[in-house]
Amino acid sequence: MSGEPKARGGGLGIPPGGQGLEETRIARAALTRLMEPGDATGALLVMALGPLEGLQVATGKRSVDPAIEGRVRSLLLGRGTKAWEGFAAASERWRGRVPDLAPHRDLETGARFGGRFVIPEDPEWPDGFEDLGEQAPHGLWVRGEDQLPSHRSAVALVGSRNATNYGLSVAGEISKGLVDRGVTVVSGGAYGIDAQAHRAALATEGTGLPTVAVMAGGLDRYYPSGNEELLREVARRGLLVSELPPGGAPTRHRFLRRNRLIAALAAVTVVVEAQWRSGARSTAHHAADMGRIVAAVPGSIYSASSAGCHRLLRDGVAVCVTDVQEAYELLAPAGEGLGGDREDRPAIHDGLAVEDLILFDALPVQRGAGIDSLTTVAGLSAAQVRAGLGRLQLMGLCQQTAGGWRRRDQQAENR
Amino acid sequence: MSGEPKARGGGLGIPPGGQGLEETRIARAALTRLMEPGDATGALLVMALGPLEGLQVATGKRSVDPAIEGRVRSLLLGRGTKAWEGFAAASERWRGRVPDLAPHRDLETGARFGGRFVIPEDPEWPDGFEDLGEQAPHGLWVRGEDQLPSHRSAVALVGSRNATNYGLSVAGEISKGLVDRGVTVVSGGAYGIDAQAHRAALATEGTGLPTVAVMAGGLDRYYPSGNEELLREVARRGLLVSELPPGGAPTRHRFLRRNRLIAALAAVTVVVEAQWRSGARSTAHHAADMGRIVAAVPGSIYSASSAGCHRLLRDGVAVCVTDVQEAYELLAPAGEGLGGDREDRPAIHDGLAVEDLILFDALPVQRGAGIDSLTTVAGLSAAQVRAGLGRLQLMGLCQQTAGGWRRRDQQAENR
Repeated sequence: MSGEPKARGGGLGIPPGGQGLEETRIARAALTRLMEPGDATGALLVMALGPLEGLQVATGKRSVDPAIEGRVRSLLLGRGTKAWEGFAAASERWRGRVPDLAPHRDLETGARFGGRFVIPEDPEWPDGFEDLGEQAPHGLWVRGEDQLPSHRSAVALVGSRNATNYGLSVAGEISKGLVDRGVTVVSGGAYGIDAQAHRAALATEGTGLPTVAVMAGGLDRYYPSGNEELLREVARRGLLVSELPPGGAPTRHRFLRRNRLIAALAAVTVVVEAQWRSGARSTAHHAADMGRIVAAVPGSIYSASSAGCHRLLRDGVAVCVTDVQEAYELLAPAGEGLGGDREDRPAIHDGLAVEDLILFDALPVQRGAGIDSLTTVAGLSAAQVRAGLGRLQLMGLCQQTAGGWRRRDQQAENR
Repeated sequence: MSGEPKARGGGLGIPPGGQGLEETRIARAALTRLMEPGDATGALLVMALGPLEGLQVATGKRSVDPAIEGRVRSLLLGRGTKAWEGFAAASERWRGRVPDLAPHRDLETGARFGGRFVIPEDPEWPDGFEDLGEQAPHGLWVRGEDQLPSHRSAVALVGSRNATNYGLSVAGEISKGLVDRGVTVVSGGAYGIDAQAHRAALATEGTGLPTVAVMAGGLDRYYPSGNEELLREVARRGLLVSELPPGGAPTRHRFLRRNRLIAALAAVTVVVEAQWRSGARSTAHHAADMGRIVAAVPGSIYSASSAGCHRLLRDGVAVCVTDVQEAYELLAPAGEGLGGDREDRPAIHDGLAVEDLILFDALPVQRGAGIDSLTTVAGLSAAQVRAGLGRLQLMGLCQQTAGGWRRRDQQAENR
């Protein structure tokens, strides 16, 4: 795959117009160096034109059809994310990195340390990443032998760097118990709660992939350096994952963006300890925005390291979990393993919580509806609608189409 | 009031047919000895016939009109509380205590230790007791100089007898902070969290009534005896309250029934520490059933004394509070003092949470609707409807009428 194409692709080493998997991989590898994680304009450009043409526009080798740009603009504004900056303005940002592009070299470097670059076109690509929408990465640099796990069999355990003994003990117990039950523990490889979660997962004899660490920089470096031995072991027996190419520095912005990947890789995010403002809370909010389940472990009201957990509970973002079984039950599909010996739960209809039932009733059967429309019809907030859609999607009750969200046509699929 | 009526009232010392306040007080005093706390049949008998005629029926001096009994029966079954035993069957229970009735002597005994017997017909009767429905007491025996407080200015602090140092510290801080803010702290006078709540309230210089202790037996005895000094001080500077007449023994059943009075006396019930099964959880559920706000203090997941609090949080019965300010804010009317510096709250419309908005929309404007009907219309569980009605009532947005619940006609009241 590092053969002759040097002369093509405008000097970037990328064959133009080719639609083969390896050409696509090379283009996406270049995109991970060109664009910052979570660059929505860049992701929409790639969604509209594909990675090969998208890269050519981003590098100024080709101009974009105004009609396509207009469609992307209305799509983006329709989702209410932010003002549309335009591909021309964005390409100013991207242009400065064009001289550094060397995707073949990056792929060779990755392969040299036993890694690979997984792209959305690969069968291994986790389907849960669809929930990230235009925040999805262009691809994932991976070290480790196993395939990327389905988010349905993964729980993210996150928390403070400066954890207390209480938090470390809880993180270790829950991580061990989850791996015992065949669940993959996802975390961020940082000191404190993250490291404890990875360590306990590796120390447990499980049947599945024990743990995934999502890095904020390139996988050629182990960061933080004090966790080098631990991260080497994660690469050997679990997976190290990053959206940054080799050599990518773990900047503050990339740490914050990295959190959305932790949330996307797991069906449930458990915050073990978090201060009032913390990265773990950011991961929790990413998870909630994606419609994933968020849980928080309570602790002493005198512990600053539990203040962020209590805040998540108080604000209704997280449910309260106090042991591994409760965390594990959150992974189970609705109606299974849930509510057995708990007599005080609110009534549910057909396994749906009331808000989800209201939302399901509001979903159109034929044409798709946007978040705004569903917000009005269901009388729920946009955040509640997004969270509810994620849950209904997990249960196979709705789907996202080009025109928006609609009920999943289960009869049609059974034909 | 202890004059000549001895000859009347069928030998019970109760003037028959008289409707004066003191005659009513004497009849109700007799009822507190005749009927166990929370005897719904007895309460409905009194609601249907008034305390004087009700007492005559209960003591077998008079039979009840079958039409009235039929109406009470359908009222009770309509509320879905339990099967209707009938006044005849219930009077078998009551008949055995008739020989012990001596309401004049009970009132004199109460007066001798500085107490009084407050009845629903008195202006002092707290309006919050209406939320108890047929669980309301016939009257309250009270020791202390102050008037019974409005539940709107009172918070119940409850918890385990075998409290941890953590729980005692939390109870003391929250109690002190509430009394500092002019709030009355209600509790059950037991060892552990209750005693700490009363003690901290009495140790704080506040502007209002510091504390109310609700006893499960007669106020002539201090129970538990180890709290005698504390309870004497509560009687001196706060209030001791019981629905049992002097000499009433604090049985296990009466402790459990007593918990509903703690919940009814406060707009907010805060569970500081509670084991998986505990009396504090029973108080919390009484409060939730009445539509009052329930809060729980989190703690270590390794502490059995916090397991009941976490259970209330997990089941969505309680909100998470971690300091006195958060507890105090639950007392404030919606929109006031709430949500100031919290940026992550779910969106609300006109100060209402989504579920309450749905419920409000479901409430009829003219005729009242029952819980069952509201459950169907709003798509909420009965527990959610009851809780929501309580919140809407607190905000002056709905009212309970003879025909059920309806919106409060605010324009009519402003005329």
